[in-house]
Amino acid sequence: MSTHTESKVNQFVTLIELGTILNSSLQPHEVRKRAMQAATSLMNCEVGSLLLIDQEKNELFFEVALGEKGDVVKEVRLKMGEGIAGWVAEHGLPLMVPDVTIDPRHSVRVDEKSGFTTKNVLCVPVRVKQKVIGVLQAINKLSSESFIKSDLELFQLLANQVAIAIDNATLYEEIRSAFLEVAEALAQSIEKRDPYTGGHTKRVLAFGVAIARYLNLSDDEIEKLKIAAILHDIGKIGIEDKILRKKHKLTEEEYKEMQKHPLIGAEIIGHIKQLKDVIPGMRYHHERADGKGYPEGLNGADIPLIARIISVADTYDAMTTTRPYHSALTESEAIAELKRCAGLQFDNAVVDAFIHAFENGDIQTGIGSNAHLISNHAKPLYR
Amino acid sequence: MSTHTESKVNQFVTLIELGTILNSSLQPHEVRKRAMQAATSLMNCEVGSLLLIDQEKNELFFEVALGEKGDVVKEVRLKMGEGIAGWVAEHGLPLMVPDVTIDPRHSVRVDEKSGFTTKNVLCVPVRVKQKVIGVLQAINKLSSESFIKSDLELFQLLANQVAIAIDNATLYEEIRSAFLEVAEALAQSIEKRDPYTGGHTKRVLAFGVAIARYLNLSDDEIEKLKIAAILHDIGKIGIEDKILRKKHKLTEEEYKEMQKHPLIGAEIIGHIKQLKDVIPGMRYHHERADGKGYPEGLNGADIPLIARIISVADTYDAMTTTRPYHSALTESEAIAELKRCAGLQFDNAVVDAFIHAFENGDIQTGIGSNAHLISNHAKPLYR
Repeated sequence: MSTHTESKVNQFVTLIELGTILNSSLQPHEVRKRAMQAATSLMNCEVGSLLLIDQEKNELFFEVALGEKGDVVKEVRLKMGEGIAGWVAEHGLPLMVPDVTIDPRHSVRVDEKSGFTTKNVLCVPVRVKQKVIGVLQAINKLSSESFIKSDLELFQLLANQVAIAIDNATLYEEIRSAFLEVAEALAQSIEKRDPYTGGHTKRVLAFGVAIARYLNLSDDEIEKLKIAAILHDIGKIGIEDKILRKKHKLTEEEYKEMQKHPLIGAEIIGHIKQLKDVIPGMRYHHERADGKGYPEGLNGADIPLIARIISVADTYDAMTTTRPYHSALTESEAIAELKRCAGLQFDNAVVDAFIHAFENGDIQTGIGSNAHLISNHAKPLYR
Repeated sequence: MSTHTESKVNQFVTLIELGTILNSSLQPHEVRKRAMQAATSLMNCEVGSLLLIDQEKNELFFEVALGEKGDVVKEVRLKMGEGIAGWVAEHGLPLMVPDVTIDPRHSVRVDEKSGFTTKNVLCVPVRVKQKVIGVLQAINKLSSESFIKSDLELFQLLANQVAIAIDNATLYEEIRSAFLEVAEALAQSIEKRDPYTGGHTKRVLAFGVAIARYLNLSDDEIEKLKIAAILHDIGKIGIEDKILRKKHKLTEEEYKEMQKHPLIGAEIIGHIKQLKDVIPGMRYHHERADGKGYPEGLNGADIPLIARIISVADTYDAMTTTRPYHSALTESEAIAELKRCAGLQFDNAVVDAFIHAFENGDIQTGIGSNAHLISNHAKPLYR
C-alpha cells in the first residue's frame, strides 16, 4: 500500500471511529462538543467548530470551540451570510479557502469577535433532512500549507454524521422534555384543585435539584429525582375536594384519608416499567428518619435517598408559604425548624445539603404563581 | 492504488454510508431491518441476519431476515449457546466458519427451523456498553468460496454501528412510550374521580386509532391523535367534584361549567411547545359539524380532523356505556345514532370510517376496568 492510500484508509478508520463516538450520545450538548473534537482531530487543524443556525433570528452561533485557543471563545453570533461560515450556511455549499486574506467572503470582524486569527479554512454545510441546520468548520491546517480537495470530501462525510447525531439528540431531548413538561403540567393542574396552592411542585423540584447537587448525585439520579419531585403529590387526585380544600384543621379520619396520597400516586404510575426507579421517591416522601412517618414507618437509611430529599424540599416549601390557618415562617425560622428536626423527621445529610444550598443562594423561597399556598400533608411538623 | 486497496477504500465508504442509513432512524423495527440489509450488502452474501437476545428467556430470536430466501423466515428462537449464533452470543467472540459441515458448533436444527441451508458463515457479537445484546450474521458468501479475515474486521465495525443505532432507537422508544404511559396513567386517574367512569380514555384512544387507520392518516398524524385522545378530558381536573360526580341531570349552570373542560385542558398543556399540534384535537372535540358545538361553534371542515375523530370515538363510548340515569345503548342502536347525526353533530367521513372499522371488528365496545361508565359531556346528543 502506498503511503497516500494507507493514510486514506487510516482517515476512513478514524472517521468511522468518530462517527461511533458522535452517535454514542443523545445529549445535544455532548454531541456538539464531540463534533468540535472530531472536526479538529480528523482535519488535523488548530481549531474545529460547529456553528448552528438560530432559525428565529436568522443568525449563526458558535456553541463551543475546542483546540488550542478554543476554550477562550464565548458564544459568538454571526448574521446569516456574514463571513465564510455565514456564506456556507446561506448557500448550502462547501467552501475551501487556502488564504483568507485574499477572499472577500472572509470577515475580519468574525475573528475580532472570537479573538482568533484565521489563516485558512475548510467549511461544509450540516444538513438534516435536506435542510441546512449549521456548518462545520476546520481552521488553520497544522501539518501543511492548507486543506486539500480530499480533506473536503472527508470533512463532508463527517458533517453528515454530525447532522444525524445532532438530529437524534434533538429528537430525544424534545421528547424527554415533553415528557417532563406534561408530567409537570398535570401535576400543576392537580395542585390547582386546591385554591391555596400554586407553584409548589415547581419549587419542590427546584429545591430537590439544589439539594441533590450538594450531595453529588449523578445526572441519572438527578433525572429520577426530578420525575419523582414532579409527581410526588399526584396521588392527591384521589383525595376528595372536601378534604383537599378544607380550610380548617383536618379531623383524624380526614387526615388518614389524606395520608393515602403517596400510595395512590405510586399506584397510578406503578405499572409503567420505565418509571420503576421513580416510584420509591414518591411513595416514601412522607417517611421520617425516626420511623414515625407514613405509609410504612421506614427508618433512617431504609428510606430511599430521593424520598429523603423530597421530604426536606416539600416541608421547607410548606413552612415558608402561607396557609389559611397559618402564616408563612420566615426563611430563618424554617431553617431553624429543619435543623431542630434533623435526625427526627429529616435526614441529617440532606438538611446539611439544603442549608449549604440555601447559604449559597440556590434556594428561592416562595416563588410561584400564587402567593397563598397550602400543603396539608406537611402537617405532622405542626401537630 | 492497487485493486485490493481500492476495494478496501470502497468497503469503508460503503460502511460509512450504511452507518449513516442505520443511524437515520430512531424506530427500533426500522433500525433492525436496515441492519439486516446492511449486513447482506456489505458482506455480499446470500442472507444477513440480526439475532437479538431475549434476556428474560435467555434465548436468541431472529426478528427479520432479508436476502433471497430471507422473506420466508418467520421468528426463529434459539437457546443461548445453540448453533453458531448461540455460541457467539454466549462467548461474546466473533466466529468465521468456512464450512459449517465440519464445525460441531453448527446446528442443523437451526437450518431446519429457518428452512435455510447454511454453507459458510461469519458471525460477530453486537455490544451495547460492553454488554452483548445480540449477534450479526452473514451467511453464504456470494462472490467467493467463503469469508476472509478482512471481512471479519469490517463486519465487526458494522456490528458496532448497529449496536449504537439499536441502543439509540431503544432509548428513544422507551422515553416515547413512558411519555404516553404517564399521560395515560394521569388521564385514567382523573377519570377515576368519577366513580362511574372506567376505561373511557383507553377506549377513545383505541376507537380513534381505528378510525384514523380507515382515513389513511400518516403515522405522524396518528401519533398526534393518540396524545390528543389520551389528554382529551384532562381539563376535567378543573371541574369540581360536586358537578363531576353528580348522579342526576346537570343544571344549566352546572352544564356551562362542565363545558369549560376542553378549554381548561388546552390551557394546561398550552405552553408545551412540543405539543402545540395536539392542542386543537383536545380543544375542539366538542365542536359539531353544524356549528352548534362548543367552545367556539366551529363549522364542518373548520374543525380539525383529529378533533372530529375524537368526537365520534368519545360519543360512541358515552352511548354504549351505562350511566346512573341512562342505560347503555346496544351497538346497533349507537351506530344508528351516529348515522342519524352524521353531518349534524359528526363529520360524515369520520362516521363512515368508524362504521367500516366497526364492521371489520376493529371496535371493541364497552371494554374497561369498570362496567358502569358515565360521560357527562356527551349529553348534547340526549338533551
